Amino acid sequence: MTEAAIHPAVQAWQTAEGDLLIGGVPLARLAQRVGQTPFFAYDRARISARVGELRRRLPDTLDLHFAVKANPMAALVCFLAPLVDGFDVASAGELAKALDAGMPARHIGFAGPGKTDRELRQAIAAGILVEAESAGEVTRIKSIAEDLGTAPRIALRINPDFHLKGSGMRMGGGPQQFGIDAEDVPDLIAAARAAGVVIEGFHIFAGSQNLSAETIAEVQAKTLDLALRLADRLAAPLRYLNLGGGFGIPYFPNDKPLDLAPIGDNLAEVVAKLATAQPEARAVLELGRYIVGEAGLYVTRVIDRKMSRGEVFLVTDGGLHHHLAASGNFGQVIRRNFPVAIDGRMNEAAQEKASVVGCLCTPLDLLADKASLPRAEIGDLVVIFQSGAYGLTASPTAFLGHPPPAEVLV
Amino acid sequence: MTEAAIHPAVQAWQTAEGDLLIGGVPLARLAQRVGQTPFFAYDRARISARVGELRRRLPDTLDLHFAVKANPMAALVCFLAPLVDGFDVASAGELAKALDAGMPARHIGFAGPGKTDRELRQAIAAGILVEAESAGEVTRIKSIAEDLGTAPRIALRINPDFHLKGSGMRMGGGPQQFGIDAEDVPDLIAAARAAGVVIEGFHIFAGSQNLSAETIAEVQAKTLDLALRLADRLAAPLRYLNLGGGFGIPYFPNDKPLDLAPIGDNLAEVVAKLATAQPEARAVLELGRYIVGEAGLYVTRVIDRKMSRGEVFLVTDGGLHHHLAASGNFGQVIRRNFPVAIDGRMNEAAQEKASVVGCLCTPLDLLADKASLPRAEIGDLVVIFQSGAYGLTASPTAFLGHPPPAEVLV
Repeated sequence: MTEAAIHPAVQAWQTAEGDLLIGGVPLARLAQRVGQTPFFAYDRARISARVGELRRRLPDTLDLHFAVKANPMAALVCFLAPLVDGFDVASAGELAKALDAGMPARHIGFAGPGKTDRELRQAIAAGILVEAESAGEVTRIKSIAEDLGTAPRIALRINPDFHLKGSGMRMGGGPQQFGIDAEDVPDLIAAARAAGVVIEGFHIFAGSQNLSAETIAEVQAKTLDLALRLADRLAAPLRYLNLGGGFGIPYFPNDKPLDLAPIGDNLAEVVAKLATAQPEARAVLELGRYIVGEAGLYVTRVIDRKMSRGEVFLVTDGGLHHHLAASGNFGQVIRRNFPVAIDGRMNEAAQEKASVVGCLCTPLDLLADKASLPRAEIGDLVVIFQSGAYGLTASPTAFLGHPPPAEVLV
Repeated sequence: MTEAAIHPAVQAWQTAEGDLLIGGVPLARLAQRVGQTPFFAYDRARISARVGELRRRLPDTLDLHFAVKANPMAALVCFLAPLVDGFDVASAGELAKALDAGMPARHIGFAGPGKTDRELRQAIAAGILVEAESAGEVTRIKSIAEDLGTAPRIALRINPDFHLKGSGMRMGGGPQQFGIDAEDVPDLIAAARAAGVVIEGFHIFAGSQNLSAETIAEVQAKTLDLALRLADRLAAPLRYLNLGGGFGIPYFPNDKPLDLAPIGDNLAEVVAKLATAQPEARAVLELGRYIVGEAGLYVTRVIDRKMSRGEVFLVTDGGLHHHLAASGNFGQVIRRNFPVAIDGRMNEAAQEKASVVGCLCTPLDLLADKASLPRAEIGDLVVIFQSGAYGLTASPTAFLGHPPPAEVLV
């Protein structure tokens, strides 16, 4: 078997006679329908299966939100709208997508450390929940809402006094640009109360891309404790608690898929305690990558096959301008290959080590470094797995003036 | 003085009473004229001064090309067209910009490891020089040119048997996706000759962002030797030799600006030897970053000023979605700050360590990590220097749905 086929993320996809299937369609046929390479393809059956799995494992009273930043493709956001309980957005641009998709404003939260006055005005006009990241932002929200003659909906984003160990990205604990330091929150609540500002609840996000169920469960329990302590200071009962997300997906050979069972058990306790202490509070889990990351493929065609000083290079029509994360240039400390395979040869054994490179004139444009693959020829489709989140959206599409990829929801 | 003011890249800019001037205009006034922050501003006087300096230091018979990929802003490409002798492009998109700017097709070269048939067709139809990266590409060029009924113009991109030590990016030597291994070129020339394909010359690019004049001079001498050896195999006299570029600019505190004098002296020898051995050959130096990198500023406004656990964070309306390189996420192994300053306070002493962060909801969005700065307030403009090359063009502008920056040529 190929290196790729060993990866559980690849084994999860159906094949027929060496062809990769997506939504029951052979990938080469899909490429004809799309009319171009490269493209990203997202599998709606896999997305809804993932949401279904989360629903089964997690307590019924927990709201499941999708973090639009993970994949803002309009059709995908529309597809997810009826499947999840709410959306989290990080800009006015994402807010527009969330509303366009039909998500009711009351189920949209907006976090982000640098909200402009214009964005705050849009958010307040829309009636969504604004997750304020500083005392200054609370003041700005109050002033803009007065100007609009509307009561704003405000939660506080908290920078906790703990962090999520082993996360791909640390977003809480220590000094941070995100949120209000937990120890400063009581004073801020008192000031807001004095100013007649109502705080609905809290958003506490400790980290992302974590594969340890134990760590995630521990942090969720700590998050609840912190929220309950802070809620005692509020003028009104707690109505909203965003527990963050942080559920990781396996990208690399030794990554183990996250075990949802212990997280679900722990969350059942968390929501039960919350219901006892703060019966009006709605608990929210905010997931982006975990919902869509494994449902997406990046597909690019081999334009040239070169030998250079004993090494094989597959030169493709794609590259880091479409998929920066796969090139290892987006927050990764050590570059590792995303799972990769050659369509049409899914049943062939690995025959060689080949590097998959993009069409850009820069050595950074490396999609797979010396991967074990069957022998690929010019015209073959190279598939990069685990590409459903932070793929196209996080890539420098204009770099070197090549055309953008297509995106399809299958 | 501030940490920023110590950096020679900052000292090179004029100020008046603490205000930074660009093209004689105070930056705050320019921001009003632009009508928004963030924006990139490029100083045409600095660009032409840099070209003038290169003209003075380099031999008259050497052609100076601009590598459009460094900054493809249309107005900037138009401004450079009459100043330089040619453009190098890396895609059909850049080719269109080069032609739109009025650069004659005969002075445009096209390199890139993954040229599509469509791009090759466009390039051949335009009559530009195609720098073929493999034997397969030569075959495709021949076939497309026959189909078009046009004689193609072809050079070979060579992967040399040496590299440019200490480069920011290594683009030659060892196994590479770029070019044809030097040792394989004689056979390829023989095959081309047999097939009636004319090879005009060679493109040999060993690396980029190098600050050692000695290393660059050494590689240029080696490049000439390699080209002359290979030229003996050509059916016709050598007509074109692209010596690459690789001239670096100082980004970080200990970086010393490149000393052009020894490079100029060495290039005088290189072109003299070339003129003797191959009198019809035009020698080309291809520079991108060196021409525009130091002429550009990224300007973003402070939206929030936060203290978190003893550290100061300046939250701005910009971020890595506009300027990925300044966040340290574009090819840098170790993250270091680009030179940074606060407009309006250029004459104030550093008072604090402050981190400049962007508006994105990700910890990667760090524009300056604990920089020594005067105390900045909400509304102040933060300036990131050395932002004229590989700034906006190499950034994931759509990430998180925020608006794009403006770009102005002043």
